[in-house]
Amino acid sequence: MRAPPVESKTLGMHLLHMPNSNKFSLRESIALLTRTPATLNALLRGLPDVWTHSNEGKDTWSAFDIVGHLNVAERTDWMPRVRTILDHGETRAFEPFDRLAQKKESEGKSLEQLLDDFARLRSENLAALQALNLQSADLARRGKHPALGPVTLSELLATWAVHDLTHLHQVSRVMAHQYRDAVGPWSGFLGVLKCSGHSAP
Amino acid sequence: MRAPPVESKTLGMHLLHMPNSNKFSLRESIALLTRTPATLNALLRGLPDVWTHSNEGKDTWSAFDIVGHLNVAERTDWMPRVRTILDHGETRAFEPFDRLAQKKESEGKSLEQLLDDFARLRSENLAALQALNLQSADLARRGKHPALGPVTLSELLATWAVHDLTHLHQVSRVMAHQYRDAVGPWSGFLGVLKCSGHSAP
Repeated sequence: MRAPPVESKTLGMHLLHMPNSNKFSLRESIALLTRTPATLNALLRGLPDVWTHSNEGKDTWSAFDIVGHLNVAERTDWMPRVRTILDHGETRAFEPFDRLAQKKESEGKSLEQLLDDFARLRSENLAALQALNLQSADLARRGKHPALGPVTLSELLATWAVHDLTHLHQVSRVMAHQYRDAVGPWSGFLGVLKCSGHSAP
Repeated sequence: MRAPPVESKTLGMHLLHMPNSNKFSLRESIALLTRTPATLNALLRGLPDVWTHSNEGKDTWSAFDIVGHLNVAERTDWMPRVRTILDHGETRAFEPFDRLAQKKESEGKSLEQLLDDFARLRSENLAALQALNLQSADLARRGKHPALGPVTLSELLATWAVHDLTHLHQVSRVMAHQYRDAVGPWSGFLGVLKCSGHSAP
C-alpha cells in the first residue's frame, strides 16, 4: 500500500501533478506566439501611465520596460539562436542574452512605438521561422547554451512561447501592485498580490 | 546610522518597497476594466485546446474555466455589490459570491461564446457604472462584506480591476504549465513556472 501523497498548501495543489506530459508542437507554439503582440496591445495601448510606467520598486520593471525587453529578445535572441543551432549545432554556443538592453533600446520611444515594433518584429520572425519548414528531425537538433549547456531546437522554441507567458504573468503582477493598498481588505483574496516574482520575471 | 535593509532573494526585491502609495482613481480603473475583454480575446480566441482547455491538475482551472468565472462575477458580483452599497450601506451584507458557479454557467458553451459574453457583460456593466456619475463622497461610502466586514466602494471598484489582473496572471501561469517539460533546462529561468498560485488565483 502506497503512502498518500504529501499535500502542501504552500506549494499549491497543482505541483503534485507535475511534470506535465504535453509535448512540444510547432503549430501550437506558433499559434501562441502569433497572439502575444495583439494581447499586449489590447491590454496596454492608451492605458494611463500609472499602469504602464510604474514598477514594483527599485531595479524592477514596468510594463513599458517589459515590452522593450520582448523587443530586444525578438532582435537578438530567438531567431538568431535558431539559426545558430541549424548552422553550427553544438559547436558554437549562443551569444549571451543581455537582459538589461531594453533600457538603451527603448530610450526616447513611447509605449505605442514599442508595441508597434513588437508586432512588426514578431511577425517578421514568425515568417522567417515558417520559411525554414522545420521537420521532426530538425526539432531534435542540439545547440549549446552558454550557461545551460546542451539544449534542443524544440526546447528553444517552447521557451520562446513560455517566455511570452512569463512576461504576461509579470505585467499583470506589476500592474496589480499599483493597487495593492487601494483594494483594502480584499488583498488576501487576490493571488496576484501574493506573487513575489520567484526571483525571475 | 541606519542598518541596511534586509534583502531576501526568496521574497523578491519589490516586496521591500510596499506598501505602494497609488490611490484609487475611477478613471484609471475604468481604463483597465475596459481593456480586459479585448485582451483575453486576443490571447485566447482560436488558440489550440491544449492552451485553453488544459488546467494545472485536479480541481484547478483552465483558461476556459477562468473566462466563465469572470462572466459569473460580471453577472452576480461587481455591479450588484455597488448597488448594495449605494442602496443599503452597511445595513445589508453582500450576497456571498459562488467561486464555482462557472461550471454550470459555462456548460455547453464554446470559449468563443464565453469571450463574446464577457465583452457584452463588461460593456453593459461599465455603462451602468458610468451612469451612476459617482463623486468622491460616494467612493468613500461603506458596505459590508460577508467575510471581510466593512469595505468602501472605492475598495470594491479597485478589487474589480485587480481581479481582472489576478486572472490574467492565472491564465498565463496555467498556459505556461502545459509546456513545463517542453522547455527543458530553461525552466529555471522562467518565473511563471515557479509560481504556485499562492493558494488563490
